[in-house]
Amino acid sequence: MRTIELEDNQVKLIDQTLLPTEAKFVKCINVEELARAIEEMKIRGAPALGAAAGFGLAITVMNSESTKPEKMLQELKNAAGRIRRTRPTAANLFSALDRVMKTAEQNAASVEELREAVVEAAEAIAEEDIQVNQKMGENGSELIEDGDTILTHCNAGSLACVDYGTALGVVRAAREQGKDVSVIATETRPLCQGARLTTWELQRDDIPVTLITDNMVGRVMSEEKVNRVIVGADRIAANGDVANKIGTYTIAVLANRHEIPFYVATPLSTIDPQTESGGEIEIENRDPKEVTTLAGQELAPKEINVLNPAFDVTPAELITRIITEKGVFKPSEIKSLFD
Amino acid sequence: MRTIELEDNQVKLIDQTLLPTEAKFVKCINVEELARAIEEMKIRGAPALGAAAGFGLAITVMNSESTKPEKMLQELKNAAGRIRRTRPTAANLFSALDRVMKTAEQNAASVEELREAVVEAAEAIAEEDIQVNQKMGENGSELIEDGDTILTHCNAGSLACVDYGTALGVVRAAREQGKDVSVIATETRPLCQGARLTTWELQRDDIPVTLITDNMVGRVMSEEKVNRVIVGADRIAANGDVANKIGTYTIAVLANRHEIPFYVATPLSTIDPQTESGGEIEIENRDPKEVTTLAGQELAPKEINVLNPAFDVTPAELITRIITEKGVFKPSEIKSLFD
Repeated sequence: MRTIELEDNQVKLIDQTLLPTEAKFVKCINVEELARAIEEMKIRGAPALGAAAGFGLAITVMNSESTKPEKMLQELKNAAGRIRRTRPTAANLFSALDRVMKTAEQNAASVEELREAVVEAAEAIAEEDIQVNQKMGENGSELIEDGDTILTHCNAGSLACVDYGTALGVVRAAREQGKDVSVIATETRPLCQGARLTTWELQRDDIPVTLITDNMVGRVMSEEKVNRVIVGADRIAANGDVANKIGTYTIAVLANRHEIPFYVATPLSTIDPQTESGGEIEIENRDPKEVTTLAGQELAPKEINVLNPAFDVTPAELITRIITEKGVFKPSEIKSLFD
Repeated sequence: MRTIELEDNQVKLIDQTLLPTEAKFVKCINVEELARAIEEMKIRGAPALGAAAGFGLAITVMNSESTKPEKMLQELKNAAGRIRRTRPTAANLFSALDRVMKTAEQNAASVEELREAVVEAAEAIAEEDIQVNQKMGENGSELIEDGDTILTHCNAGSLACVDYGTALGVVRAAREQGKDVSVIATETRPLCQGARLTTWELQRDDIPVTLITDNMVGRVMSEEKVNRVIVGADRIAANGDVANKIGTYTIAVLANRHEIPFYVATPLSTIDPQTESGGEIEIENRDPKEVTTLAGQELAPKEINVLNPAFDVTPAELITRIITEKGVFKPSEIKSLFD
């Protein structure tokens, strides 16, 4: 299922805040609408945010009335600035902006050239994401054995990408190879992307899935119900430390105790060689209301103190392998991919 | 705040499913109503369930129209059987039933004697619980240092007991000694006793509390925001393994990695010397709807597989100390208390 695409000079995306109750597509007609959709997490997931960032620049040139390339380039810079301020952690959002802006600067002889180059670069990011996921799935599926139960956190599926998925892409590839694989999905508080999105997309694909709350991970591991863990990533530092959805670190510590392999499936675009270690990664803190209310219902007393970090950092030492489109690596090996 | 008591031949208890929105007391007029209140978790927490079990037998004799002690004893056996079938894990529920039934059998010369003995035994269980908690708080508070931030899970407070609390009793005692202590409360999915109850009762007592989701425990520990963990227990085996609210084991594994002391505060009545190790403890599996819905809202697609164990088992090796009314012990020492 395609999560995000260009249509009629607009960005069309499935509103993930409404799933699983309603599968509704919304269209963003300008960069401000797109930026708000990102902030409100109608679209989320590091690879999907990369595609969204590119498409945000694409609709800017598509709808621009500028007749001078310098003017259009300035509009693009403003648009990129707005998108850059939406969410601080996902590496792909920044790498996509950088890539499209570089192309723009190199193809600014005329507005026509600029327009064509930007749209083409944005489309390429989205298309590559699908191919990269399929290649990643192929590479990762070699680690999966027939009969495995795979625990995953949050949603690193087609809904987190343009299509197919990173962690769930590996599951899909293993199934396509005829392996009997099932999934345990953590609900992933506070926004419940596991309960709402991972279950929904696996159910659609007839892949067996069991839902648990985040605090049941230790129990299911101690009952030997889990063979492997596969998660996605929002940013990977050069030393192999991984920033991913809050709760990932807790699962990695448990997997380590139970000697369960812990894999991170991620495109190379999520690796940021400029970030030396996980401690440097900016962790987004979100609205406390995400924790204290659900669908308008109060879950806690008013005026209670709340922490709501959206991500945590899993140190490289707890990660068995990083699965990419270029192959499967130990965390210590990824730095050399950028030399 | 008193959670449960006898009033007008009925069991009066605060309905914990309505907190924090509404602080409403309900009255159970017979054992069937009380058993349902336990099953629906209007009352919960191992020590509170011990008191509830005793009071269930008390109202049975108080309202009985039997004129023969054998008849009344049979009513008591039926009532005990009904209460025994409510929830399988909490040790106190069973020890309270055994204690009151033993007293009943020893004082069955007349219905008057029987009635008096049963009510007295039930009242004694509740009164002792308060004294035991205060003594436990005193013993445990010696482990707490000025300035500590204590992470707790679920609700092991006055709401889990007759009054004062086990884990939160230790916090209260430390505060009464003038120590500046604050609490981090995990929300404790699926029923959110941490978000709803622990925050509520600490806020009432002006004890600083910060709410997090269960999957943030690793993050707050890696940021060195936690000095100690204190939790309650539902059943402790002779070898020191602890069954407690689902998620406790995960927190213990994290505390172990971060070298944070992990304490279990519990009355001796929660220790079951007949259970040799944690593997023997029956773990209650509850309705999947507790996981798939929250505050009446559907969180997951329909017909999704769900696991919902209410408890997990933390092995003795992960527990630093067990705090009781008789003192503070290593898990390996508790067996000798029953020799």
